[in-house]
Amino acid sequence: METLNIAILGCGTVGGGVTQIISEINQEISERAGTKIVLRKIVELCPAIAADRFNIPLDLFCGGGKDLSAAEANEYIRQIIASDEIDLVVETIGGKSDFVYNLCLDILNSGKHLVTANKSLLAERGKAIFETAEARNVKIGFEAAVCGAIPIIKTIQESFTGDKVLSVSGIMNGTSNYILSQMQNEKLEFSVALKMAQDSGYAEADPALDINGGDAGHKLILLIKLAFGVDVTKEELSISGIEEITKEDIDFASEIDAKIKLICYAKKVNGDIYATVRPMLVKNSNFLSDVNGATNAVRINNKYSGVHFLVGKGAGSTETAMSIVSDIVFIARYGDKIRHNPAKQEHNLADASQFVFPYLITFHTGNIPGTTGFIATAIGKQEINIETVSHNRHAGEKAMFSVATMPCTLGQIENAIQEIRREKPGMLLSEPKIMPILY
Amino acid sequence: METLNIAILGCGTVGGGVTQIISEINQEISERAGTKIVLRKIVELCPAIAADRFNIPLDLFCGGGKDLSAAEANEYIRQIIASDEIDLVVETIGGKSDFVYNLCLDILNSGKHLVTANKSLLAERGKAIFETAEARNVKIGFEAAVCGAIPIIKTIQESFTGDKVLSVSGIMNGTSNYILSQMQNEKLEFSVALKMAQDSGYAEADPALDINGGDAGHKLILLIKLAFGVDVTKEELSISGIEEITKEDIDFASEIDAKIKLICYAKKVNGDIYATVRPMLVKNSNFLSDVNGATNAVRINNKYSGVHFLVGKGAGSTETAMSIVSDIVFIARYGDKIRHNPAKQEHNLADASQFVFPYLITFHTGNIPGTTGFIATAIGKQEINIETVSHNRHAGEKAMFSVATMPCTLGQIENAIQEIRREKPGMLLSEPKIMPILY
Repeated sequence: METLNIAILGCGTVGGGVTQIISEINQEISERAGTKIVLRKIVELCPAIAADRFNIPLDLFCGGGKDLSAAEANEYIRQIIASDEIDLVVETIGGKSDFVYNLCLDILNSGKHLVTANKSLLAERGKAIFETAEARNVKIGFEAAVCGAIPIIKTIQESFTGDKVLSVSGIMNGTSNYILSQMQNEKLEFSVALKMAQDSGYAEADPALDINGGDAGHKLILLIKLAFGVDVTKEELSISGIEEITKEDIDFASEIDAKIKLICYAKKVNGDIYATVRPMLVKNSNFLSDVNGATNAVRINNKYSGVHFLVGKGAGSTETAMSIVSDIVFIARYGDKIRHNPAKQEHNLADASQFVFPYLITFHTGNIPGTTGFIATAIGKQEINIETVSHNRHAGEKAMFSVATMPCTLGQIENAIQEIRREKPGMLLSEPKIMPILY
Repeated sequence: METLNIAILGCGTVGGGVTQIISEINQEISERAGTKIVLRKIVELCPAIAADRFNIPLDLFCGGGKDLSAAEANEYIRQIIASDEIDLVVETIGGKSDFVYNLCLDILNSGKHLVTANKSLLAERGKAIFETAEARNVKIGFEAAVCGAIPIIKTIQESFTGDKVLSVSGIMNGTSNYILSQMQNEKLEFSVALKMAQDSGYAEADPALDINGGDAGHKLILLIKLAFGVDVTKEELSISGIEEITKEDIDFASEIDAKIKLICYAKKVNGDIYATVRPMLVKNSNFLSDVNGATNAVRINNKYSGVHFLVGKGAGSTETAMSIVSDIVFIARYGDKIRHNPAKQEHNLADASQFVFPYLITFHTGNIPGTTGFIATAIGKQEINIETVSHNRHAGEKAMFSVATMPCTLGQIENAIQEIRREKPGMLLSEPKIMPILY
């Protein structure tokens, strides 16, 4: 039996999980691969913690298990890249720094396969990396980069090859979903739910990328690449996070039988791609409304096979590592026969103001008779049909209500709001909140 | 560009869907395959209907579009099998007759790849077929045989190779699920819901295999083969259908916040496989409870990556055909590199009496004080803890109630029922109904 020799760079939560699986079920994965899978080297700054947590023999670590300086680690990495003994490198350092970017290019240029969970790197700086892999005829496995354990990459690349993807959407950030679930179920304000998420280990000390939609945006960029064959940049995407969601918003959502979820959404219509990451009101009849806590879910609508859902763990040590090990087996099995779906089609990303959805618009106004009628009339003047107007929350001199529309563009709604501001300065006490409704 | 030449045997709902997709997106699938996909020949007894429905040029049909006798069709099939021009045959005739069985063996023995949606053939007579493919080093694509459009075969074979499947379960028959959904939502008796399903085209004129669990059993046999690497026979499986489900059963299910679903279930515990197809009470907190109508859903619990759900269309023309076309692309891409997970492990199928679940037991009794107490005591004597006892439905001289247990074996419950019969002959007016509860 031949061997496939592996090095792992970075042995934290995910890299450590990879060592655990490769060690515990080595016989099974080697049989499946048709190749003996051998872990040769690990580069890690602090091996003691990883060795203890994942029960790794110290002699697998470059340096024999002692802590490494950055310079030492770099030297070991250079040796691995230069070595003919290593066939495949697992990059689980993470981040999109120049260091990691150049490292990945060097791995590929040395003729080694690359398997990585690094979504920010591939989403924001992936073009040159994928091009280098193609030029050198080596492969990149990145199943772990999108929704952890959910096998969405191979599903699109290998199982939906007899179809055309019409849209891809879903819940792709477990931290924000956990926070929203807590707000919903425990009637909490955002700041309290965020604190709970941090205390219980669901959210990082710096949760910015999770709650501002950036992390979900990285995943959506990679899915757009696979589903529609085009490269979009993070700047091109329309991204909003969950920081502004309030208890009242969740209450208005309940009133129309919906839950607020941070939704990734991309759809191709007549060659134009509509893509956004933002909080949406997901109707309770939609499967995604039941996806709670740290679970991720991807919805694919295909031309010939209709709607699919894939649901699973979006993060975690062995959960994400499983996707990496499966990528290793896939590369061992199929090597240079692996074909990425043809990409690089011309694309036109639609402006967010053109997105057609039913929307919920929430208004803060003075508690003055005639307000609801005036606002509803302004909306109607923009040819927007109204589905429902919520129960009005009166509180002293203030009032708050929401209007659910039939499908229309964000642009139409903004025109209506401009008219209200123009005709009745002072009627709106704050910027109305506008969220799409997902049926 | 090389070509992959295809023949289709049987051009009904699924075979016709394959011709449609191959024709409509030929450029895309050929690019993905790296090989020009060419449909050369179709054998069909009544080409006119298929040609009209799927817009197929008549000259693609053997015989030029005229109706064929069985003998003529067989002669054309023999020519295709003997031809060096054909690389891959799509078998969409269906059924497990000797004719189709021998046909599939002949296709493989002629060195051609086989793609099929034929679950009954592969589940009941598949052993020799898979062995022949292995001996001749040709491939069998059968994604379409299990849950139509849901890519569960490739997910287990290619995406979960870095894991161990602990259990596989789900809703795998759309017809029975549609009937149960109608009974639940519209408060119908089984016979009325079945009639509606037939009238609206969801159920065949002969719905036996759909409602008696046989069709779901075929799918479970194939999934057990993939997930656990063993061949089980239909006779070894414990299979019950939905024919005996009543409005009252659904009412008792609602009382414990559950819905009745026909569930396929297989789990490996210490080397033993527990496998069954039967109606279960799925708690509303379980995702599967929300899977309604003709939708299928598969739940996989993996050692390292936890619980996954795949949800999609379990049947339909282009839905099932999509899986066939994707199999064609996969075989074109990877050909003889495709490896099925190693199978043929020794297995021990656990006896149904040993299945550990929480159960709901429904009793018909006389309307006599003390009955509930006696039955609850008999259950307790078998070391079964009781979770809840339902509201008792009194009707004249009869009564009906259900007992939800904590996890126990079917054998324990049967012992309790035996004791009730022995101690109080006549207390039970009919055989108690026993259904597992799925949390």
